[in-house]
Amino acid sequence: MIKHPAFIVEPWSVRECRLHMDVLAQTESVFALSNGHVGLRGNLDEGEPHGLPGTYLNSVYELRPLSHAETAYGYPESGQTVVNVTNGKLIRLLVDDEPFDVRYGTLHEHERILDLRAGTLTRKVHWTSPTKGEIRLTSTRLVSFTHRAVAAIRYEVEPVDHPVKVVVQSELVANETLPESGSDPRAAAALEDPLVLEENLPALDGVAVMVHITRASRLRVAAGMWHDVDGPENTQVDAGGREHVSRVTIATSLEPGQRLRLTKLFAYGWSAQRSRPAMHDQVVAALAAARLAGWDGLCAEQRRFLDDFWEGADVEVEGDTEVQQAVRFGLFHLLQAGCRAEQRPIPGKGLTGSGYDGHVFWDTEAFVLPVLTYTHPQPAADVLTWRKSILPLAERRAAQFGLEGAAFPWRTINGEACSAYWPAGAAAFHINADIADAVTRYVDATGDVAFERDIGLPLLVATARLWRSLGHHDVDGRFHIDGVTGPDEYSAIADDNVYTNLMAQRNLRSAAEVIIRHPDRAEQLGVTLEDAAIWRNIATAIFIPYDEHLGVHSQSEGFTRHAVWDFAATKPDQYPLLLHFPYFDLYRKQVVKQADLVLAMHTCGDAFTSEQKARNFAYYEALTVRDSSLSACTQAVLAAEVGQLELAHDYLGEAALVDLRDLQHNTRDGVHMASLAGSWIALVDGFGGMRAGGGRIQFAPRLPSGITRLSFRLRYRGRLLQVDIAQRTTTYHLLEGPPLPLAHHGEEFTLDEHPATRQNPAPPTPGPRIRQPPGREPTPRRPEIG
Amino acid sequence: MIKHPAFIVEPWSVRECRLHMDVLAQTESVFALSNGHVGLRGNLDEGEPHGLPGTYLNSVYELRPLSHAETAYGYPESGQTVVNVTNGKLIRLLVDDEPFDVRYGTLHEHERILDLRAGTLTRKVHWTSPTKGEIRLTSTRLVSFTHRAVAAIRYEVEPVDHPVKVVVQSELVANETLPESGSDPRAAAALEDPLVLEENLPALDGVAVMVHITRASRLRVAAGMWHDVDGPENTQVDAGGREHVSRVTIATSLEPGQRLRLTKLFAYGWSAQRSRPAMHDQVVAALAAARLAGWDGLCAEQRRFLDDFWEGADVEVEGDTEVQQAVRFGLFHLLQAGCRAEQRPIPGKGLTGSGYDGHVFWDTEAFVLPVLTYTHPQPAADVLTWRKSILPLAERRAAQFGLEGAAFPWRTINGEACSAYWPAGAAAFHINADIADAVTRYVDATGDVAFERDIGLPLLVATARLWRSLGHHDVDGRFHIDGVTGPDEYSAIADDNVYTNLMAQRNLRSAAEVIIRHPDRAEQLGVTLEDAAIWRNIATAIFIPYDEHLGVHSQSEGFTRHAVWDFAATKPDQYPLLLHFPYFDLYRKQVVKQADLVLAMHTCGDAFTSEQKARNFAYYEALTVRDSSLSACTQAVLAAEVGQLELAHDYLGEAALVDLRDLQHNTRDGVHMASLAGSWIALVDGFGGMRAGGGRIQFAPRLPSGITRLSFRLRYRGRLLQVDIAQRTTTYHLLEGPPLPLAHHGEEFTLDEHPATRQNPAPPTPGPRIRQPPGREPTPRRPEIG
Repeated sequence: MIKHPAFIVEPWSVRECRLHMDVLAQTESVFALSNGHVGLRGNLDEGEPHGLPGTYLNSVYELRPLSHAETAYGYPESGQTVVNVTNGKLIRLLVDDEPFDVRYGTLHEHERILDLRAGTLTRKVHWTSPTKGEIRLTSTRLVSFTHRAVAAIRYEVEPVDHPVKVVVQSELVANETLPESGSDPRAAAALEDPLVLEENLPALDGVAVMVHITRASRLRVAAGMWHDVDGPENTQVDAGGREHVSRVTIATSLEPGQRLRLTKLFAYGWSAQRSRPAMHDQVVAALAAARLAGWDGLCAEQRRFLDDFWEGADVEVEGDTEVQQAVRFGLFHLLQAGCRAEQRPIPGKGLTGSGYDGHVFWDTEAFVLPVLTYTHPQPAADVLTWRKSILPLAERRAAQFGLEGAAFPWRTINGEACSAYWPAGAAAFHINADIADAVTRYVDATGDVAFERDIGLPLLVATARLWRSLGHHDVDGRFHIDGVTGPDEYSAIADDNVYTNLMAQRNLRSAAEVIIRHPDRAEQLGVTLEDAAIWRNIATAIFIPYDEHLGVHSQSEGFTRHAVWDFAATKPDQYPLLLHFPYFDLYRKQVVKQADLVLAMHTCGDAFTSEQKARNFAYYEALTVRDSSLSACTQAVLAAEVGQLELAHDYLGEAALVDLRDLQHNTRDGVHMASLAGSWIALVDGFGGMRAGGGRIQFAPRLPSGITRLSFRLRYRGRLLQVDIAQRTTTYHLLEGPPLPLAHHGEEFTLDEHPATRQNPAPPTPGPRIRQPPGREPTPRRPEIG
Repeated sequence: MIKHPAFIVEPWSVRECRLHMDVLAQTESVFALSNGHVGLRGNLDEGEPHGLPGTYLNSVYELRPLSHAETAYGYPESGQTVVNVTNGKLIRLLVDDEPFDVRYGTLHEHERILDLRAGTLTRKVHWTSPTKGEIRLTSTRLVSFTHRAVAAIRYEVEPVDHPVKVVVQSELVANETLPESGSDPRAAAALEDPLVLEENLPALDGVAVMVHITRASRLRVAAGMWHDVDGPENTQVDAGGREHVSRVTIATSLEPGQRLRLTKLFAYGWSAQRSRPAMHDQVVAALAAARLAGWDGLCAEQRRFLDDFWEGADVEVEGDTEVQQAVRFGLFHLLQAGCRAEQRPIPGKGLTGSGYDGHVFWDTEAFVLPVLTYTHPQPAADVLTWRKSILPLAERRAAQFGLEGAAFPWRTINGEACSAYWPAGAAAFHINADIADAVTRYVDATGDVAFERDIGLPLLVATARLWRSLGHHDVDGRFHIDGVTGPDEYSAIADDNVYTNLMAQRNLRSAAEVIIRHPDRAEQLGVTLEDAAIWRNIATAIFIPYDEHLGVHSQSEGFTRHAVWDFAATKPDQYPLLLHFPYFDLYRKQVVKQADLVLAMHTCGDAFTSEQKARNFAYYEALTVRDSSLSACTQAVLAAEVGQLELAHDYLGEAALVDLRDLQHNTRDGVHMASLAGSWIALVDGFGGMRAGGGRIQFAPRLPSGITRLSFRLRYRGRLLQVDIAQRTTTYHLLEGPPLPLAHHGEEFTLDEHPATRQNPAPPTPGPRIRQPPGREPTPRRPEIG
């Protein structure tokens, strides 16, 4: 956890005023730059010290054997792990023969700023070497949103008071040594030197190119760099290298008032099919395009791109400046993760670290895509198009399990399943409904009929087929889905998980509707109106367990009859529970890792009455320990809905600050994309009360006492809306598009170019604060001074 | 499967009349000799060809790392695998410079006979070498029941018609190369050269000794051999060796009428603590004692020991000669597995092969001990004494799981848990009740009060404590045991498994009773009459799920509501199902690997009415595929009880012939000790209707049409009983001990020295034959001709 104030709270940037070596790895994740295709961790320019060196290309992974102590039918044989590819951000500096290293000499000043509007990471250093050479160094780094393959660094050194001799070595380095991963020695072993050299050509026309291929997965990776050097006349530039290193060396002497300025452009490409020469040429071409734009052009394009993004996506929060910063930080990282992924997945950590082996999970569809769908929808379509591209693999997986349709992998990079523990992997079939739901939401929000026909329909049909074959009817005609794992990973292999069943119900109904809308395309997939009717009937028959005695829904059949976890006897250092208790004990008791029934009340709110929501929420709050980052935001939404606004605010804080405070103790491995998305969800779905579907969008705004104003923009059906919420009133603005029918606290009206202001209903008298397991209460949001 | 008649059907022996190379590995298991301490597979004297070379010492194992693709709290880090120790049975033969090898030359005759009364394996060979040297070879092998450390071979060679030059090499060989295990490369890797040489001293006084230590588990193993050579005057004897080999070479020329006779005695010792010199001396001493007895003395002691055994344990079956042979074969293997184990475990395969890594499971207490308890009780006490010795480890395991009392390991050699898949391992808590039940049965059958105090009480208390902490009361005061796995391994992690709950109920009651009988010892264990009262109350409150709609017990909560497995769509080559379907699908459907609810009806028959038994049996028969060898015998018992006598006979055949016919396709890895025990159980508990407990023994004899007479002997409370069952009548004989009250079909009477004959009630009109899943019917027992 980051206990000291590592980052300054500013509305449009994340600033670190001095180097905190104890959280170096965390800052590398926070300061990571990415465009969804290329990702650079915020490693120091000179490479060390480092927490975890990282340069990633979306979907470049290595295979490693999964050795099961006891194997069984259907277990995956191979794991996939994201590869740290050729590092192009490395720039070493020698000052008077002394390497610049923050651990030596005197660091007078060290500041890093992630600028959320410029899309750059800037570093300012004032340093005196052990041999008394004193310099100022400024570097600015970007990963271009407009040039998918390209990153750039501007690097400037100047002496302070006295002349210095300076040598700068700018490199491409492959197969960097990574720190031991500790928990899993096999992952580390497989990823030792994953890249096999194919080409390391000396710079031609100033462009150096290296081509590697991954050892087992056979993916070809090319990296190239080009430099523009601006220094005194005596400046010398040389190029060279050895096996996995390509290097440009710049040597000069600087008098006070002089400076050395280096502009480094570097570019990446990868392919499973294209040849070495083709990959070589590809990066050279990418560099040529970037050179044409130049450093200033790249920066200007970057800012323009972000201006457009914030125009449609910005959220303003008054009264809680930490959350204000965090929600923009989160939106920025979502954009970075998705905007140029282009039919590749968005992993749980984006391209900010190697956590979870770089895998993509259900988080993407369930948490990340809802935010992108309403703010910057193209990446949502891209991710779902990627899902469609792996449909044949998912269909093969279903067939292997004796099921129809598609069984999407619980975790993957290349589309093949690679969960090593099936009760919390293969059995979590709800991912199929989560994907289907993301399709339905995207189509609802954009009205994109072509997408619905070409991408949506096959996904909805394949997932609906799965549910039909996965469940069965009982003697009373009720449809059950047995032996599956819901979102809560402290339960597994249970019957009739409410979240799964409700989401399957929606999946079946959506598929039926889409078949009816596109009967011709449906016919090509071998489905008919007959299937649609059957799916609808199944949806109606789906069983939802309810505990009459307690008056609450049972997360899955029998759950509420189980023993309640002994929270009183659980010590604070025994969280997360999964590291201190066996699965068998967690599974058979009432203890919830993350919102499950509560998530169902968010995603499928219509299936519950208000009274049920209130009772269910209170019941599950007492059982939920939030050992997952995929929980607080959902709890915030439901807390807001049931009127527990202060509790909702606390959960919002937890979701939003997950990485800026390292609340999960693993930000070193990458940021938590879904939790960052969750801060938007908590604000918009929680305090904004936004719900959309079936062509209708509605709001039920209500603010906690600590937030004086909340304003957000979102896109729906070709409109750009701004919702401006104050404590007593809400004003709706239609910024783009034709008039839109919407609802405010149930009052329906049509919003046109005139802003419409509505009273927020007086908040209900808050009941007694709902209790969490002892010690698991969210940290209260303190009222801010001033 | 052994499809041809590999073995001749004889009442007191298992005879192979010619060498079937296709079932060589299976015959090595069938012909294995053991006394529970030392085990020799029935490998050919000359070592090859072989299926699987094997020499085992009870509890000599090697550790190997268990690498989990995804690890979690409480997973064991080490596996244990039985070690193939120094091979002392190797005797190579050269005839006129040509090695004797059954694959070359002409094998005129090759016979092997396992003599169940002599306790020997004899082999008779008539062979002409490729170079026309013709010999007869006779070897007889025994593992002494009376000298725990000792095995012996008498080996005789004589020429036929023409003189031959003969060289015999008799060896001790360590670290034999084992065939690839195939499925699990890590097991093979870890067990490559497990023995590290400590000493290989040349023969002193004709005694050669080798001492090794296992690489990781650090167990010291000593082996010694001594020879007596009887041959023509020109016979020369030399001794020598190299690293892992010690060899005595005997060279001679034999004229027709002459013969070379070698008597080889070899002995073993092992220890985790004793020094190399101590181990050396131990085997030399064992050999000295064996030399004193001499070959004839060893054979005579062996026969005497077996005479005593059969006196108290024999079973006669008329009308089914295959079963007659098989039940004696089974009893012989049980005796071999247990009689000198002496406070070491009885593994699932005894010491006949390395199957299941040489581990001991619940099979021992649930199937093997019931037979030994009533026939040859000392090994039953020994095994339970071993369980008591590992109680501290089981208590540590329980504490690791947050439980009280003891959690015995699902599979182990050294007492540490080493299941690599927890849903079918750690979660199978019923093993604790199985151990407790074995205690209760042993005490009931023997009246051994000292055992009850010293061994039984601590085991009963520790297991009762487990159940108390594992379960919980619901709002209605019913006690539930959630999230456990019962005997049926095609279900897992279920609530309120009937078998587990009923056995836990018995465990709690037995513990309460024993506390009351030994309050002083109970106090030392920290348990009081208060605990006894609580345990009894819990026992009364234990919930037993029952499906009112179907009128049957649900194997566990919700089981009967699940989808029924699609048996019609399952192809014959898809059995065993676990190799062709994922666990997730097996677990969530109604399909039963092995008797579970039906086993509960056997072990806890009082908990069911006759009508319930009949309905339950029919219901579960239709779901049970018998993909485990731990099923047919239990199904036989219940089939007999519900009046399906022909079906019971079929199941008896399947249990009895498991290894003589290789019905499970894995007899190569060792015989199935529990299924062999099951043939006795099927006969005695099934057709004899024997049930005992609480100081009462009762019978309900009833024979199927194919068995004309069944007679068995058993020991109960200091008596030796013989029960002689014909189709219409049963005669009870009291062979030893004071008069005994017993019951015949519910009629109570006291049996004294006068035989008592009672009518068997007319069998009920058999209902329609109960159905199994298609293709999973047991093979019918054909009526025998003559």
